[in-house]
Amino acid sequence: MNKAAEQSLQGLRERIDAVDQQLLQLLAQRMALVAEVGEAKHVLGLPIYVPEREAAMLAQRRAEAEVLGVPPDLIEDVLRRAMRESYRSEKDTGFKCVNPSAGPVVVVGGNGQLGKLFVQMFRLSGYEVKVLGRQQWADADALLKGASVVVVSVPIATTSAIIADLKGRLDHGTILCDLTSIKREPLAAMLDAHSGPVVGLHPMFGPDVSSFAKQLIVVCDGRQPEAYGWLLDQFALWGAHLKPSTPQFHDEAMALVQAMRHFTSFVYGNHLMAENADVRELLAFSSPIYRLELAMVGRLFAQDGALYADIILSSQTALPMFRRYLQRFESALQLLEKGDREGFIQAFGAVADWFGPFAQQFLKESRDMLLVANDRRHLG
Amino acid sequence: MNKAAEQSLQGLRERIDAVDQQLLQLLAQRMALVAEVGEAKHVLGLPIYVPEREAAMLAQRRAEAEVLGVPPDLIEDVLRRAMRESYRSEKDTGFKCVNPSAGPVVVVGGNGQLGKLFVQMFRLSGYEVKVLGRQQWADADALLKGASVVVVSVPIATTSAIIADLKGRLDHGTILCDLTSIKREPLAAMLDAHSGPVVGLHPMFGPDVSSFAKQLIVVCDGRQPEAYGWLLDQFALWGAHLKPSTPQFHDEAMALVQAMRHFTSFVYGNHLMAENADVRELLAFSSPIYRLELAMVGRLFAQDGALYADIILSSQTALPMFRRYLQRFESALQLLEKGDREGFIQAFGAVADWFGPFAQQFLKESRDMLLVANDRRHLG
Repeated sequence: MNKAAEQSLQGLRERIDAVDQQLLQLLAQRMALVAEVGEAKHVLGLPIYVPEREAAMLAQRRAEAEVLGVPPDLIEDVLRRAMRESYRSEKDTGFKCVNPSAGPVVVVGGNGQLGKLFVQMFRLSGYEVKVLGRQQWADADALLKGASVVVVSVPIATTSAIIADLKGRLDHGTILCDLTSIKREPLAAMLDAHSGPVVGLHPMFGPDVSSFAKQLIVVCDGRQPEAYGWLLDQFALWGAHLKPSTPQFHDEAMALVQAMRHFTSFVYGNHLMAENADVRELLAFSSPIYRLELAMVGRLFAQDGALYADIILSSQTALPMFRRYLQRFESALQLLEKGDREGFIQAFGAVADWFGPFAQQFLKESRDMLLVANDRRHLG
Repeated sequence: MNKAAEQSLQGLRERIDAVDQQLLQLLAQRMALVAEVGEAKHVLGLPIYVPEREAAMLAQRRAEAEVLGVPPDLIEDVLRRAMRESYRSEKDTGFKCVNPSAGPVVVVGGNGQLGKLFVQMFRLSGYEVKVLGRQQWADADALLKGASVVVVSVPIATTSAIIADLKGRLDHGTILCDLTSIKREPLAAMLDAHSGPVVGLHPMFGPDVSSFAKQLIVVCDGRQPEAYGWLLDQFALWGAHLKPSTPQFHDEAMALVQAMRHFTSFVYGNHLMAENADVRELLAFSSPIYRLELAMVGRLFAQDGALYADIILSSQTALPMFRRYLQRFESALQLLEKGDREGFIQAFGAVADWFGPFAQQFLKESRDMLLVANDRRHLG
């Protein structure tokens, strides 16, 4: 009987492998079709990411899954994963140029990682692109003449000085924009350096994204939105999601989320070192959630310390806010040191009330992510 | 010409939908085959998760993908996602009972969420299971008599008292184990309350997991490992990964990872509230990484404050360690307040050196996760 079960197990595994090979063939077919879609969209000048088409298509497949007894989340997750690859490959086919008569796009700092990405995207869309790096500064005037857009993509600590250096060099009609992760100071510097159209941008993603699809760009108006509208249309065509904001609101939100998370991650990494933690052993002990939290801290240290120092130091609100955080940490710790269990539970409840339905939403979202983390788990 | 391109786009979309429907059919076939595998494994008493088979199968599909020009990560991610569903459905077919002659399994606190999960798993494996809740305490002696295993699954604050209450009530051969997230105190209490086999367990997952496959259980030996070996074999058959440890090491690691992350998440939530942050607006502003970090904090507040208070307060090392963290926060903040950019960068570099290759590994791991987070993004 066990012999029969063993043979049957072997046979079933072979059939599963055959199904998986067919899955692979279909993914290859899908990618080829999507490449053709990219060509057609290129001709039509359509954006590569169309939220309504995606949502309608997923809803249909979910309904069909239900009928077949397949969990709807399974087909949705599989298709979302396949679509990610599609966005990446659509990029390679190029994009429609929304302003074919525009003069050259000049990227100041176009040799940096983020600058390079924008250089590539503008070129894929048919614009003439010039790079103005440190080496080319002597020819700046010649390079900047006749530019339709000047994009400033330089380290945060030098942004304002470099913008000030552009003063008097730009044509009146040139669009001046920057990609810095703070917005108040650079925007003020741009408005001072240039009398024409100005817009502050913060691409909320790293230079390693495979595509602009679904990526967020925060947009802070400076001057003459009607003159730079076509530029935003171009970003939207690349698939980006544009979020208008004020520089003030943007910078405060960034201090609260970005600077705060960077700094506490730095302190926690420092703390793990000082406590002589054994990362390898901690990992062997970690459930998906702690592994993910360790990864979110550890990832910071694979990056540039100077960049983080400058992001924090350039914020006008971060340091006093860190101090308020420190005081709250101290109060909460005192509560526990006094053994005031009820006091802690009460404070916890107040925050839970404040989060309201977001707490449940975050629990669900993070649970989905943790399932993915567990799928990937390599044991040993 | 645009008309032709539009028609061609429509035709391509229909063909993509057809491919996606075939994908769905294959996923349904795969699930049916996997259910049959579950039956065969049940007969053979094989574990539902076999790392070697999974790794070999994925390596083959990756190689085939390469040949077809499909990114190997795409097929691997799709298959991992499909396999997660398989583990879930394999659970429903039941498990082989590794010790069919064993007496009843008694789960103390078997009405709690985690207790219920273990009750279900033991029943699916053919054991007689009895639940000893508060209501049944009067009949405790009768329920405990002849038990092969007694599993203590009660709130952390009452664990030791309830274990002490078992003293003199257990047969000498009964295996006594607990599921508490600290191990020193409960293990000492178990060794004191019982003269037979004792083992401390910490399942590193919540009661909401769909399957034990790939989930971690930390195992702290108490006494007579040869007598409780079959119990660990049963857990392994459910797909769990067993990690032996000492109670001391386990508790220190948990304080450093679990208690610390809970507490700093609590303080950060409290801080967001006190700063009058607008969660909805922060989310509209958040790149996948900040959204994930917000979610990892907010998820805490969808859960039980008392549980977190007890986890922290029951740790013997957490509070002094939090104080050391606070001092490190203070020092780092002073560095920035003095505008000591170089000092910060130097400290950052020291931690980066300490993380070593883990920093890069964490960056890669979290990047994969962030791509998944971005796939799921709903814009608006």
